[in-house]
This record gives sequence, C-alpha cells and structure tokens, in this order.
Amino acid sequence: MSRPHNDTFLRALLGEPTDYTPVWLMRQAGRYLPEYRQARQRAGDFLTLCKTPSLACEVTLQPLARYDLDAAILFSDILTIPDAMGLGLYFTEGEGPRFENPLREEWDIRDLFVPNPTEHLSYVLETVREVRRALDNSVPLIGFAGSPFTLACYMVEGGGSRDFHHLKRMLYGRPDLLHHILTVTADAVTDYLNAQIESGVQAVMIFDSWGGILSTPAYREFSLAYLQRIVDRLIREKDGQRVPSIVFTKGGGLWLEEMAALGCDALGVDWSVDLAAARSRVGDRVALQGNLDPAVLLTTPEIVAAETTRVLQSFGVGNSGHVFNLGHGVSRFTPPENISVLVDTVHTQSRLWRKL
Amino acid sequence: MSRPHNDTFLRALLGEPTDYTPVWLMRQAGRYLPEYRQARQRAGDFLTLCKTPSLACEVTLQPLARYDLDAAILFSDILTIPDAMGLGLYFTEGEGPRFENPLREEWDIRDLFVPNPTEHLSYVLETVREVRRALDNSVPLIGFAGSPFTLACYMVEGGGSRDFHHLKRMLYGRPDLLHHILTVTADAVTDYLNAQIESGVQAVMIFDSWGGILSTPAYREFSLAYLQRIVDRLIREKDGQRVPSIVFTKGGGLWLEEMAALGCDALGVDWSVDLAAARSRVGDRVALQGNLDPAVLLTTPEIVAAETTRVLQSFGVGNSGHVFNLGHGVSRFTPPENISVLVDTVHTQSRLWRKL
Repeated sequence: MSRPHNDTFLRALLGEPTDYTPVWLMRQAGRYLPEYRQARQRAGDFLTLCKTPSLACEVTLQPLARYDLDAAILFSDILTIPDAMGLGLYFTEGEGPRFENPLREEWDIRDLFVPNPTEHLSYVLETVREVRRALDNSVPLIGFAGSPFTLACYMVEGGGSRDFHHLKRMLYGRPDLLHHILTVTADAVTDYLNAQIESGVQAVMIFDSWGGILSTPAYREFSLAYLQRIVDRLIREKDGQRVPSIVFTKGGGLWLEEMAALGCDALGVDWSVDLAAARSRVGDRVALQGNLDPAVLLTTPEIVAAETTRVLQSFGVGNSGHVFNLGHGVSRFTPPENISVLVDTVHTQSRLWRKL
Repeated sequence: MSRPHNDTFLRALLGEPTDYTPVWLMRQAGRYLPEYRQARQRAGDFLTLCKTPSLACEVTLQPLARYDLDAAILFSDILTIPDAMGLGLYFTEGEGPRFENPLREEWDIRDLFVPNPTEHLSYVLETVREVRRALDNSVPLIGFAGSPFTLACYMVEGGGSRDFHHLKRMLYGRPDLLHHILTVTADAVTDYLNAQIESGVQAVMIFDSWGGILSTPAYREFSLAYLQRIVDRLIREKDGQRVPSIVFTKGGGLWLEEMAALGCDALGVDWSVDLAAARSRVGDRVALQGNLDPAVLLTTPEIVAAETTRVLQSFGVGNSGHVFNLGHGVSRFTPPENISVLVDTVHTQSRLWRKL
C-alpha cells in the first residue's frame, strides 16, 4: 500500500514540513449530521451501527463527503474492548453507555481475559478494510482505542460517573486489583490497535478521557504507565510507512512533559491548554493536535473563523507539527455549516502564512 | 478584636513560621455528619438552613466540636449573591441549585444590580457575628464567595450544567453581555466579602469552581480579570490584623503563576496538582492550600493516614506556607471517623517534621 494522495496529516504528526495545517475533528461523524441520524435510525440503535461494517463505513465517510478534511477516523466506540471482554455493553437514551456486568468483585477481575481481535472484534477490522477500500488512498484513516485507565473507569463504575467513587475506592483501597484490570486492558488495547494497523489504519490515537480526574502520582501510576506499555509495543511501520500514534489525556495539561516522553508522535490537547505554552514545554519531541473549544461551533460563522484563527496563531504561524482539531468531540448541536468555515479557515490561513 | 488563640491557619496563609501545618476542609460542615442531617431536617430545606442565622451558626460549629480543626468556615452557599439579585434560587433533590429567572435576555442583564449586603444579605452577616461570638476567639472564621465567573455560569445556565452551552454561546457570541454580568457580579462579591470582614470573618476565600472549563485566553479575560478586580479592593486589615485572602480555581493548575500575581495571600489547588511542582512555580509569592483527593476519605483509616502523609510530603516537610485541605469538598459518603484520622495525621506528622 502506498502513502495516501493527501498525506499532510501524517507528515504533520511526524513533524515534517507541510503546505498547510491539516485538520480533522474528534467525533466528526456524529449526531450533528442529518445523514448520520438517518443512518442510525436505519441501524435501529448505536451499537448495531458500530457493529455493522457497511453502516459504520458509510458513517465514517459522511463528513468527508461534506468537508475537505485531511483524515478519516474509524467510526466505532471506545468501549468495544470491554464489550468483547464480556461486560455486556448497552446504551440508554440520555444516560450514555452502561455495562450489565461492572467489575467489582475480585473473582470477576481475576477472570478478565485479553480478547483476540480477529475473533471478538472482527466487525471493527472488517470496517477498517471496507473504509480503506472506499477511501482509495485519498486521505489517511485513523484507528483508535480508549486508554486502559479510561476503559477501567467505565468497567468498574458500570458506565459514566460524576465522581468515580467505585473506581477511586479501588484505586486507593485495592490498587492490586486495579493494576490487574489495567494490565489485561493494556494488552487488549495493544492487540486491538495492532490488529487495526494490520487491517489498514494509517495512524492510531489513544483516548484517555478520564486521566484528568487523577492526582499527579495516581496519573503516573494508573494511566501513564499503561499508556507506556501500549506505545512501547505498537507496530511502528507497515508496508514501509511509519504509523504515527497520538495520545490524548483530557485534562492532562499539567503532565505534557511526561506524556511527550512516552515515545508517541503527537499529543492531543484540550482547549484549556495554550498551544504556545505547550509547545515550549514539549519542544519538537511531539507534534500537537488541538484545541478549539467545541462550544465555538455553536456560534456564528464569523466567530468560528475568528476563534479558529486564534488557535492557529497560538501554535505559531507557518509551522508544521500542528494538527488542527477541537479540544473535545463535536457537539450534537453544531450547525453543520460552521464546520465548513472551520476547515476552510484552517486551510486558507495556514497556506497564507506558509508563504509569508 | 484580638488574634484568635489558635492563629496557625492565619500565620500559614501569610507565610509565617508555624509549629505545625494547619488544616480545615472544604464542606467540613455537611451531609456526611449525622448532626448536620438532623439540623437540616429541622430547618426543612437547605435554603432555610442557610438563611436562619441560629441554624447556620450551629452547623458551622458542628465539625469543630468533633475535630481539632484550625479554622471554621461560614456555613452558607455561593449562590446567595444571585439570589439577592432576584434570580430566585431554589434547590431540587438530586439536581442541585436552580434559578427561576436565569439570565438570558439582554434587558434582564442590563437590569442587574449590586445588592447591598446589609440589606439583602443581612442573614449572612448576622450568622458571621453569631459564629464569632460562639467561637470566642478560639480559631479564625473564614468567609467566602463564589467567583464572578462561577456565579455567572449558574446565573446564565439557570443551574449546574454538563457543558455550559448557554454560557459559552454568550462568551463567544456576546462577550459584552457576559462582561456586564461579570462587572456587576465582581462588585457584588467585593461588597459582600468586605461586609463579611466588617462583620468579623478573619480570612476570605473565593471559589472559582468553573474557571477550569475555559481556554487559557478566556480564563484570563472572563475569570482572572474579575478575580483581580475583587482582590484589588478587598479590605486588607481589620482592627490591626491582616485579613488574608485565598483564591481557588478548580481545574486551574495550568494558570498558577498568573493567579499568584493577583495579590492574594494563598491559592487553593485541586488534587491534580503536585504541590512540590506548584510550589516551585509560585515560589513564596503565595501560600498553598490543598490538596488531598476527597475520594481518599471513602476508604480506611490506614489509607487516609498514608495518603495524607503523601500530600504533606509533596509540599515538603517542616515548612510553613501550607494549609492542609482537600482538593474539593468533603463527599457526603465520607465516614466521619476518617476525618479524625486526617486531622490527627496532619498535626502529628507536621509537628514531628518541624522538630527534625
């Protein structure tokens, strides 16, 4: 397989010069798009949408038909791994993901196993292959997984949580049990991401959505250490092409230096982080991906253009090593036309600055 | 009025030498205490408890009867100011505070006024005087208020929120309106805190619970600038005694240097911040208050002692300039005996280290 025709995203992740700043958006395939809502209705429910390769492929491609995005991201859910581990994932309207069998008892935790992706997660790998065929090497496809700590949060709580009391009780009271969950899950994530790479994804991203709820020593011990375990064992090259990796801890702005030492190629940063300050802290060890506040997209085209420019400027004009993105996922209340403005602003402004 | 017999807390805030590390806990008077639940039942509802000086005084003193705490904090709510502004505060079981009249329309915003504390918030000032009489100069009494930005979040959203979309739309779309709310609210907070000082509180704390939802430039413009407006105009001395001020932005760990330049005496820090790193960033410009994860208190006495020691050590043993606290309020699920262990550990360990 050759490099995609538009490889700007991959080059920016690797710190190579680019003609402009590439852009994609977390949750770019989602409920703000009428065609997504229509596909979801056809699927019946969210999980069927994820688990039906033809539908997941269709939905992955929807934002690329509308916008001049520099990457596609596999449409899936971070909780496919715990689901494959037998926790019984389901979704309730308005309350988000839940597990039928949360991990609370020692015997359940000791029984945890590393699912074989080609066996338990074949629908994801089939989606990857189908999307790659459909993309026909136009733009790269990003694969992803949740971080072990973030998956453990959901697995122990049995769903989302406001204060993560079950998880925290285990962390402080039975750290041995949590370490066991994290070890098994880190191996599962590694195998899963490597299987996605073997199936055709050209970059991978690890979403640590909940690492920011931890104290600094707890972050190091229960999240960062397992991110390290994964990054150390990711496939770095496929068919002669480097496969870059991106690590994103939401609320992890305090720990960027330590994250930059993981050996990944880029860090995702949420909108609380100033990109200029982040860049001076991590130097050229990693590229940065982010970080417009997704709430900006709820306003007008004029404001979207102005705030997008502000984020570009905060990284520093005319430079590579920046992938434009939001600081978190696209809100379902986003007017689709605002995303056109965002994408066009990133491309136009950054091209202009490259020429100065 | 003379200095309290135990002035360790005040001395630590001012960076003066102390025999041990003082400790108090955010939400130390609260639902985890059976005697609090009993008083609340007598009051009928939370707001009546806040608005009845004899009951608010009783509840303020409850944790001091149980624990060897180094300060009392006025029992009240951060939303008394918007309530005095006529927004119609009420509380719903399980959903937290709500306003009958959220601030959405320009004419409502233009009508906002600075309430006169002696007129509209006299019940708070009466509580302060009653608590001071009851404390009889044993330990200092802390007064407090919400930050203008945090109050504006509640006022615009009409209550708590997951993503603060109303607030964010105004911030990006009509910043002039938000600045007007923040200016009026900053003046209200200033008058309110100064009235608390005139009535007898010996230190003040400003809670910026939601500043952490902002981008760095938005934090500077919409939260920090109004914290500055308040700190600049606080009464600094009363009856020959310095009245120290503490500023706490939850999730504000990235901005400690800028907060330390406010001119306040101490910064509260949540548990994500490493105290040693924070201290090296702010130097001796401010004392630090924090930062045990409140979830530690849900475990066993042994774990509470160990994690408390860890926080003391992270600041650095044997030093002043640290006020021990949690990184956020006490959880309602905290076993009361764990707080004894916390307080005793802070006192015993820090005394020991002072003597090394």
